Order: sequence, then structure tokens, then C-alpha cells
Amino acid sequence: MKIIDGSVTAPQGFLAQGVEAVIKKADKKDVAIIYSTHPASAAGLFTTNIVRAACVDINRAHLERGSAQAIVANSGNANACTGQRGWNDTIEMARLTGQLLGIDPHEVLVASTGVIGVAMPMDRIEQGIRSAAASLSREGANNAAQAIMTTDLVSKEIAVEIEIDGHPVRIGAIAKGSGMIHPNMATMLSFITTDAAVGSRCLHQMLAASTRQSFNMISVDRDTSTNDMVLILANGLAGNECIDNPSSAAGKVFQQALDFVCISLAKMIARDGEGATRLIEVQVINADSQATARTVARSITASNLTKAAVFGEDANWGRILAAAGYSGAQFDPSQVDIFLGGLQMAANGMGLDFDEDRARQELHQDPVIIRVDMKAGQERATAWGCDLTYDYVRINAAYRT
Amino acid sequence: MKIIDGSVTAPQGFLAQGVEAVIKKADKKDVAIIYSTHPASAAGLFTTNIVRAACVDINRAHLERGSAQAIVANSGNANACTGQRGWNDTIEMARLTGQLLGIDPHEVLVASTGVIGVAMPMDRIEQGIRSAAASLSREGANNAAQAIMTTDLVSKEIAVEIEIDGHPVRIGAIAKGSGMIHPNMATMLSFITTDAAVGSRCLHQMLAASTRQSFNMISVDRDTSTNDMVLILANGLAGNECIDNPSSAAGKVFQQALDFVCISLAKMIARDGEGATRLIEVQVINADSQATARTVARSITASNLTKAAVFGEDANWGRILAAAGYSGAQFDPSQVDIFLGGLQMAANGMGLDFDEDRARQELHQDPVIIRVDMKAGQERATAWGCDLTYDYVRINAAYRT
Repeated sequence: MKIIDGSVTAPQGFLAQGVEAVIKKADKKDVAIIYSTHPASAAGLFTTNIVRAACVDINRAHLERGSAQAIVANSGNANACTGQRGWNDTIEMARLTGQLLGIDPHEVLVASTGVIGVAMPMDRIEQGIRSAAASLSREGANNAAQAIMTTDLVSKEIAVEIEIDGHPVRIGAIAKGSGMIHPNMATMLSFITTDAAVGSRCLHQMLAASTRQSFNMISVDRDTSTNDMVLILANGLAGNECIDNPSSAAGKVFQQALDFVCISLAKMIARDGEGATRLIEVQVINADSQATARTVARSITASNLTKAAVFGEDANWGRILAAAGYSGAQFDPSQVDIFLGGLQMAANGMGLDFDEDRARQELHQDPVIIRVDMKAGQERATAWGCDLTYDYVRINAAYRT
Repeated sequence: MKIIDGSVTAPQGFLAQGVEAVIKKADKKDVAIIYSTHPASAAGLFTTNIVRAACVDINRAHLERGSAQAIVANSGNANACTGQRGWNDTIEMARLTGQLLGIDPHEVLVASTGVIGVAMPMDRIEQGIRSAAASLSREGANNAAQAIMTTDLVSKEIAVEIEIDGHPVRIGAIAKGSGMIHPNMATMLSFITTDAAVGSRCLHQMLAASTRQSFNMISVDRDTSTNDMVLILANGLAGNECIDNPSSAAGKVFQQALDFVCISLAKMIARDGEGATRLIEVQVINADSQATARTVARSITASNLTKAAVFGEDANWGRILAAAGYSGAQFDPSQVDIFLGGLQMAANGMGLDFDEDRARQELHQDPVIIRVDMKAGQERATAWGCDLTYDYVRINAAYRT
């Protein structure tokens, strides 16, 4: 597998664009379209928040056919908690995009992100869709990545190339994150394209497997969004024999590359968490079960006290163990070793007399690596988060106004 | 019921003191003793964190007899994650206190709060215990309240008087809170005294009932501590007939007063959350079950995004509904009305065109009242939290150093 330039238009047959439609305040792009020139199988995973935007439910319905050819997205307005009008506006975004691209509106998936509970400015949205549809190109991928950003500081893009049946196959993706990030199915928002031929049912299984160890393992603030989604389109232009079984040789090669793409994006999202200065990677090893490893890793990345201590470069390992303890997982605290990078801070649940300067150096790294050895089995899990800073408070004290 | 001056020494037969033993940095009190001159029935509730300080387990064992005559507490060091040595140090605190007071060491309960994972400076602890034991008095209650503070800005004390069987009965209490506050049995730390005569089993039941709607309904940062506990001693000097049934007439009068004491302290703890500028009270009404009401109320008070929006006086009601949605409770979002103080912001899950100036005024109040009407039944619950501020980050970025 090799990492290549570009993102959603790196695979064959994909075009994209992002334009300014004045949905957000400043001179920023806020409407994006990703389009496959050929029919594509598709899959999606969505937020488990029971307060959901219309686009989540409409995409679920559209994906029942297992195919989609375009994604239309906007930032600046989540179109959540907007009732029947919000539902109609989402349908209209799909209808107009389908009309402009000459495809069935059911082949269009819709994603919105931004403030909750405010009606969509549909005149500007429609103008944006027209403008984006008219200027789709392979070069437009970065603009699309920018157009889905809210408080993100950097756009999040990646592409890789693998070989399947002697055919070069590419996977490209963009994502946005920043705040209200504690995904529980997927993250707000991630769009993946590939020219691999993959059956839609198999595509869904592989997307779920990748999401489980990537987007579902990050947290910025423990708030699960109303609009989270990860979508993937596979148009088959690479010419490989269609992958219908994740366990096949080709399926395994594709899964590994998809895992890499999803984990890379998830880490970019955590690193660019609102106000964050550092990525925190929590590795739980030697747990008695996958569930314990995952639960403990996520609990530590979500602990405000641990996050604030990392920001302050304070090697307060007691907070790490406390967060493991209240996670809900059952384990023996007197077995646990804790490491900060290469430095052991606690052995068998008790503090060691470690070098404070060295600990401060480890906390100054990016990423900060916290390793928890449970010495109870062979399972492991990794989760990602970010530090809690003054800027997180500043950003969220006045997000809406 | 009337509110009276004082706290843990307001009931008959209780003495207290708090002294400086240089466990904390500055010229602050850090060792406290509360003592009943007569035998008392006792009950306690403790953290559910599986990473627990030795004092939690030792108190549980001591309370199996249903009686206790003294509480010895220190701040500045939690004596958690300190292994066998921590266990021995806790036992030694009970032993020495018992010896100095002339009571069985099993009649002494121990509570520690502060940094996790550092060995107790036992020479200074012992000196503090000797000094406190030698100067116990009714006037020492405020000193005791100060001696259990960590990052608290104000001491938390309350006392009430009720009448049972024609006997005036008093309940007094002190507490500390501030950070690592998301209790799941009790809060870090609350000590309650009463001169009522109450059987220990009944006392435990009533303490659990009060805790359920007070300490277990507050959150400062969603981090559940390793040392949380609420303890109550009842020495019977008021002369009432011993209360052995919470459902008796006397039991109901006592329960109501105990509820008031616990809710008052819980609100003081939330209001004085680390860095907080305002108390947030979330009232969930007309829920289909108690469990739903409690879960939704707690989820909203614990949402970083909601807390930051209150700090910024930004009426971002979408975050309130989103926090309800990911709480785990099942409900119909399209039924929900949301109010900020007297101002309705959302009806049937959708935003209203409310007056922003008025909303800002409501968010400037202390407490800020958020009311969520689920229109699905008759159950209700109230939870308390505080805003998320720059100072929370500042305090926790360098707590240990």
C-alpha cells in the first residue's frame, strides 16, 4: 500500500468541488459535491443520537438500494431540529443535485453540519449546489474538503493505492471534525471514494469494521453529534473482480487499506479537535477482552481531567487510572501499569518515583502516547483524543453568535 | 423545618476541629476530626469507581457494625493508588484517632481527598490528628469544613432543625466538591451529623434515598472520583423514639429534612465547581419514567458544549436537545419543549424565534434554569451542574504541580 497525493478524486471516475455560498459567515467555502461519473455501490454509517438531522434518515433510506453516485454537503447549518421544513429542504438538496448531474435523486446522499435548529437558507444553498455542480473537476477535491469544515483549522484529506488482481485500486477520503465529536457509529462527516469494485453489502461490512477501530475510537468532547456520518462510494472503474466477501484475499487487502484511511482521518479529526494543541493516543494492551480494552481506552481519552492535565503537561497519572476505573469495565487496578511514551509512571496500580523532567518532555510530544498495560489477557485497543484547552472554552462559549 | 446556624456541631453531642498540618501547600487547614461524645449509629455511601482509595473499603468494613463515633479526614492527598502502604496508613489514622478519643478504632471512619498516587506524609498527618483531637469544640465546625477543601473556593456547611415526637432534632453537615465530580453513589466528601435516634439500617436507607436525588444528580466534569463518600452519624441525644422505618411519620419528617440538607450541599458543590461562574439547574418534567428524567437531566448538565455555551451566555438550545438525544434514554424528540428560565426556546423539537436579549438575560442569572418538557408522562427529575470556563482548564492543567 502506498500513500498518494489527493483525496476523493484520486480514484478513477470521481469529480468534486467546493464553493462559497455564504452559509457560514466569512469568505469560506460551504457547499460541496462529490460525484462518481459511473454508477457506484455505496454504504454509510450514522450517528446513534436519537435527535437526528433529516439527512441521516434520508441517506439511510437512499442507501437501502446499496448504490449512490453523488454526495452533496454543506457546512454552517446542520439542518437538525428543523422539523418538516428541514426534511423538505434535505429532499430538495438531493433533487436539485440529481437534476443537475442527470441522475436519480435517490442516488444522491446529503450531509449537513453546523448550527442546530435554524432553518436552511435554501436560496443560497441552491445557488451553491448549482455553482458546484457546474465546476466539478478532479482538482476540486481540496475545495470540497474545505467546504465541509466548521471550526476545523485544517482540511482533512488522504488517498492510498493498493493492488488487487493486478489492478491498481485507489481509496480517497475527506473528513471534518472539530467539536461535538464523540462518535457512536461514525463521525461528523467523512466521505470516502474508491474505484474498487465492491458489492454494497460487503462494502457496508468493511466500512463498519474500519469505523469500529477508527471513528468510533475518537473523542473531542464526549458530545455525540446529531449529524455524524461516514459515507463510501465504490465505482468499480479499477477493473478488479468485484469483492463480495471481506474474508477473501482481495477483501483483506482492501480492508487493510480502508482501515488505514479511516484511522488516518480519525487521528486528523482528534488532532484538530476544537482548541487542541496535541493529539492524545491511548493504547490499552493485554486486556482480558476487546470490550474492556475499548471501554478503558475511550474513557481515558474522554476524561476532562486527563485532557486538561495533558494541556498543562502535568504527569497526573492518577487521573488516567481513575478514568479507567469509572469506565464501567471490570478489572483489577492493582495489576495495571501506566506508561507515558517510554516512561513508566505506575506499576501494579501504584506510582513510581519517575523523573518529572522526562515526563514533561513526553507530555510535550505530539502525539502524547499513554499506554495502559492491564496484564490480564491479550486484547488491545487504541483510542484518540486531544487536550482540553482555553481555546475549547473560547470557541464553544460563543459558537452560535 | 427551619434552617439554623452552624453545621456538624449544631446537633447535640458533636464536636469538631480542623487544623493546619502542611499536607497542602499554603497556610491552609487540612486535617479534620468530627466526634460524637456518645455512641452513634452510622451509614455511608461510596464511589462506584473500581479504582478506590483504601479509606473507602475500610469504612465499608467499619460500617458493617452500623455504628461510628468519629470521622477523621484530610485534604491534599487522596491516599488512593498507594497499595499496601496506603492501606496501612489509613488503618493508622483510624487507630491513632481512636486512641486519642478513647474509642475503638473500628468506631472511626477515615476520608482522604487530594492528589492520587502519592504516599501520605504520615508524620504530618499524625501531628494534625493529635492537634485536632486536642482542640475539639462546638466552634470548630467551620475549621473542619475548611480542612476538607481542595480547590473549593468556599466552605460548604448547613444545619436544620425539625421536631420529632415533640423533641427538637437537628441535622448538620459539611461537604467539599470542586473537581472530579460526577458522583455515582455519593460525592467527594460529605459528612452529616444528627442528634436524632435512628437505627443504622433505616439510616442507610434514608441516606441512599436522599443521595439519589442530591449528590447523584450533580456533575462538574463527568469524572467520578476514587474517594467519593457521604457519611452520617446519628447519636440519638435529641431523645426521640428511635426511627427504624423510613415510612413512619417520624421517618418521613426526618427524610424530608435530610433531603433538604443533601440537596443544599449538592447545589453548593455544583455551584463551586472548579472554575464555575454559575450554577446550572436542569429540570426535566413530564417524562415517561423516572429513569428517563434522571438520565436526560444528568446528560445535559454533563455536556461540555452546553456548559461552555452557558459560560458564553449563548442560547444554543440545540446542544441541550443533542445532549438529551445521546443520553441513552429513549424518547420522541419531536415532542420536546425547551425553556431557559421563563423563556421558551424550542417547541416540539424545533426552534422558536425567541428574543436573544431576553435569552442572554436568562443566561446571566445564577442559577441558570433549563427546563425540558418531554410531554410524555408525569415523571420529573432535577440535576445540577456548572458552566465550563477558562478557569476549569487553568486549575486542572496544573493541579498536581
